[in-house]
Amino acid sequence: MSAAGKLIGVGVGPGDPDLLTLKAVRALGDADAVAFFAKAGNASHARAIAARHLRAGIIELPLCYPITTEVPACSAAYRDALADFHDKAAAKVAALIEAGLRVVVLSEGDPLFYGSYMHLHVRLAPRFPTEIVAGVTGMSGCWSAAAVPMAQGDDVFTVLPATLPEDELARRLADTGAAVVMKIGRHLPKVRRALIRSGRLDRAVYVERGTTADEKTIPLRSKPDDEAPYFAIVLVPGWERAP
Amino acid sequence: MSAAGKLIGVGVGPGDPDLLTLKAVRALGDADAVAFFAKAGNASHARAIAARHLRAGIIELPLCYPITTEVPACSAAYRDALADFHDKAAAKVAALIEAGLRVVVLSEGDPLFYGSYMHLHVRLAPRFPTEIVAGVTGMSGCWSAAAVPMAQGDDVFTVLPATLPEDELARRLADTGAAVVMKIGRHLPKVRRALIRSGRLDRAVYVERGTTADEKTIPLRSKPDDEAPYFAIVLVPGWERAP
Repeated sequence: MSAAGKLIGVGVGPGDPDLLTLKAVRALGDADAVAFFAKAGNASHARAIAARHLRAGIIELPLCYPITTEVPACSAAYRDALADFHDKAAAKVAALIEAGLRVVVLSEGDPLFYGSYMHLHVRLAPRFPTEIVAGVTGMSGCWSAAAVPMAQGDDVFTVLPATLPEDELARRLADTGAAVVMKIGRHLPKVRRALIRSGRLDRAVYVERGTTADEKTIPLRSKPDDEAPYFAIVLVPGWERAP
Repeated sequence: MSAAGKLIGVGVGPGDPDLLTLKAVRALGDADAVAFFAKAGNASHARAIAARHLRAGIIELPLCYPITTEVPACSAAYRDALADFHDKAAAKVAALIEAGLRVVVLSEGDPLFYGSYMHLHVRLAPRFPTEIVAGVTGMSGCWSAAAVPMAQGDDVFTVLPATLPEDELARRLADTGAAVVMKIGRHLPKVRRALIRSGRLDRAVYVERGTTADEKTIPLRSKPDDEAPYFAIVLVPGWERAP
């Protein structure tokens, strides 16, 4: 146990355990406790990625999201339930830090880029010494696995959630050098239409479970169906052949 | 020396040598040769980051950019000179691969995200077995060092080169959740004006040499001068306090 408690947000990368950084491995080796988010009833992806680097006997603090399927995701009730969950999760982590522990919070990809860790960060960083260990993002893992050169030189690069309306997706895809569309799931037919409307379908690449053993990569125009898990992404490379 | 030659693009991360991945370290340990870009007369940043992991006796292939200060950067002559340089660099790397060597090409940040490695990739990947090792991007290193939560949930995230015209910068900054403006250099006064026009100056953070010992982080509105190196970036976080 350390003399003074500390919060450490650690990115564990896109899925391949070898894409942890040396700094992440060191942070795990020095940690007194490790916290991670998981959906109720599911194993934590982030913990699975980091598993081989957890010390025997380390304190584990799973933070299990409440089941909210009965509440619409855009409703005030959903936001309240989530805020309450994050408040309670932060209180649990705070109790360990106050006891003098170094608490690592695992984050898939990079902690400050669409990561759940941020909900703890905004609540705890004002109160405790805090450190962030940057990680390889999920999208870097995907375009590296697919060997797709993404952006170069003066390209504008845009990350778009597939939840956006079709008109907005089409407008933004037509107005960027390169793009990543993320959280595809049931939105794939809409994303396909927006790519066609913006003239960007031809070079788009669909990637599922990038850098893992179950990875699937296929040019989107060759994908025969519209089945896609939530974490699938579509890469729209911005760069063909610069000098 | 390996039985069959191979091209391996390896991201060495944003600057802190501890932000290399385990996979990058392994690729360096298995490499017969290492290639890296450098400006003529300057040491290679990527090589310096990876230095401690290079095997004694490894073949080193520096690829030194020609000095082109006498030619305007947007001119056809500049593009031709650069294309010629990249063709020759690719030929040098190809000769080593054809001799059966595993050649690692070092890339600051991530190889397929604004990296010089891409110029070799598009020339060599069609001819040789190729592997990419994703890296932590420079921007992830900067926002982690500055502890700035960047994007969450359904935020749109945009990377903007500071070379864009002021009107376009202002328009795009007003139309995104989060943004990174990169390659600041002499463009800082223009970037500042575009941030003011788009109402985004207040939370913008200036970061110079993120994750290195010389790192400087300051709210942009508090930065008293307009001095900035080429690789400085400005973070415009998109997220304040979601649930």
